[in-house]
Amino acid sequence: MTDRIAGVLAPVVTPFKADYSVDAARFVRQCRWLIGNHVSLAVFGTNSEANSLAVNERMDLLERLVESGVDPARIMPGTGCCSLVDSVRLTAHAVKLGCAGTLMLPPFYYKGVSDEGLFRNYAQIVERVGDPRLRIYLYHIPQVSQVPISLALIERLLGAYPHNIAGVKDSSGDWSNTLSMLTRFAARGFDVFAGSENFLLANLRHGGKGCISATANVNPAAIHKLYAEWRNADADAQQASLDAIRAIFQKYPMIPALKQAVAHWGGDAGWATVRPPLVELTAEQAAALVGDLEGRGFSMPGL
Amino acid sequence: MTDRIAGVLAPVVTPFKADYSVDAARFVRQCRWLIGNHVSLAVFGTNSEANSLAVNERMDLLERLVESGVDPARIMPGTGCCSLVDSVRLTAHAVKLGCAGTLMLPPFYYKGVSDEGLFRNYAQIVERVGDPRLRIYLYHIPQVSQVPISLALIERLLGAYPHNIAGVKDSSGDWSNTLSMLTRFAARGFDVFAGSENFLLANLRHGGKGCISATANVNPAAIHKLYAEWRNADADAQQASLDAIRAIFQKYPMIPALKQAVAHWGGDAGWATVRPPLVELTAEQAAALVGDLEGRGFSMPGL
Repeated sequence: MTDRIAGVLAPVVTPFKADYSVDAARFVRQCRWLIGNHVSLAVFGTNSEANSLAVNERMDLLERLVESGVDPARIMPGTGCCSLVDSVRLTAHAVKLGCAGTLMLPPFYYKGVSDEGLFRNYAQIVERVGDPRLRIYLYHIPQVSQVPISLALIERLLGAYPHNIAGVKDSSGDWSNTLSMLTRFAARGFDVFAGSENFLLANLRHGGKGCISATANVNPAAIHKLYAEWRNADADAQQASLDAIRAIFQKYPMIPALKQAVAHWGGDAGWATVRPPLVELTAEQAAALVGDLEGRGFSMPGL
Repeated sequence: MTDRIAGVLAPVVTPFKADYSVDAARFVRQCRWLIGNHVSLAVFGTNSEANSLAVNERMDLLERLVESGVDPARIMPGTGCCSLVDSVRLTAHAVKLGCAGTLMLPPFYYKGVSDEGLFRNYAQIVERVGDPRLRIYLYHIPQVSQVPISLALIERLLGAYPHNIAGVKDSSGDWSNTLSMLTRFAARGFDVFAGSENFLLANLRHGGKGCISATANVNPAAIHKLYAEWRNADADAQQASLDAIRAIFQKYPMIPALKQAVAHWGGDAGWATVRPPLVELTAEQAAALVGDLEGRGFSMPGL
């Protein structure tokens, strides 16, 4: 299992031009800055506005990133769509490019679907991609997808495809659920990533592998530092400091706030653009966010 | 407004082969049977498993349908996706083919989005498609999409694009909401379709234009009969009879039940196939559904 990805990953925010088209050059620059800060790339996550992108846009952007020289072993693209056909296409493409794994939402249009139906979805993806290199990280984010990944579903998938079902991102915000995943599955090579750095220390102390967090887009070095030093005496103090920064971002709509921070500290106002149905921060919100963060000595060096 | 579509529409169920690929020939046959029963075609709706199809699959299938000779003035495809790019592509394609209008979900991945963000989504679609023939029917189905279309949003969209915002399908199941839509907007040329035949008579009595209903897939002639005869003395009795048939289907997962009925009365077992994450009825459920329907004298003549 030593070849598996671990540590801190950012669901990289996706830059748009004024006409809402994807800006690949800005995207690659941002990814390089994150890698330079020891953070790996969970591109096409919730905070990447991935579901606001077309399938072809996602494939083109991933190719651009790999062609730019970023090591695909540092990339875990989101590839779970409502349509099985799209999920298979994106997943096969990511595996072919050599990505570390794929972060996979369940199909999220229909609500109240059965574990049997979700099992079939993931099983079809594994069978159709048909590549031993495939590593699926299940994406549990019920407050957004409205389709939870139950412990029983994980049990069944791990039993059927122990080599391909590699882990989970638990974005439920419910630590007792993360702990259940760790207790039941971690010893079987199932890698648990916390859905935010709020649970990074707790996750590592219980055998988890790191975190995949929105705010790793803006605070990568400090989050990685805790990952690297979690056995140190000051780990709880580091955790508290990370939590304080994250709490500021959580006062605003998260994606517009992340992009506003990149726009401000990167000196590139165009970064604030979000695709509908999202809306960028108001000027008042943007000023308040920056003021709050500066008040805590926050900055984004090297951006 | 006399050129607008009205009456009963079915969100046509989409047939799959055993390998889950789309079966275009079966689809066209089913559409022709519905048209022969006076029902128009809201293809690619919720009950069509539209979000389980790739964008290209939807475009190919619509082309096949129009090439087969079905009048596009009888077709209202669903074209609302999570990604603005996909919504624009599908909508422009439908308009180019001469479809009566498009039924448009809001982007449904992000929850708790603002009316401003939803307005921008629809405004971008109108502007980018840029065709005076475009007729958008907003799709309000909050229990599935989790993203409601508010009355305030309709007001704003109608004000900005009175020619393109043509109406709504209200699938909330909340008659008071449908009535508010009728009261506030119907006189301004905004066509309200009930989301099921349960509200067909009430909708017509208050100035609505018809219904777009799952069970129009299986009970088209009787539902159309009420639409044609709603001023007759027996209209309430007809409504009660329709409700009784629908209530039987509602005892089961709707999409698998609709497909099972088509499979049974069409003598074509393959029709029962659904794409993951949905699951077909069990043999016991299928037998109970057919038994219940036969007990009420239900059949699907000519299928």
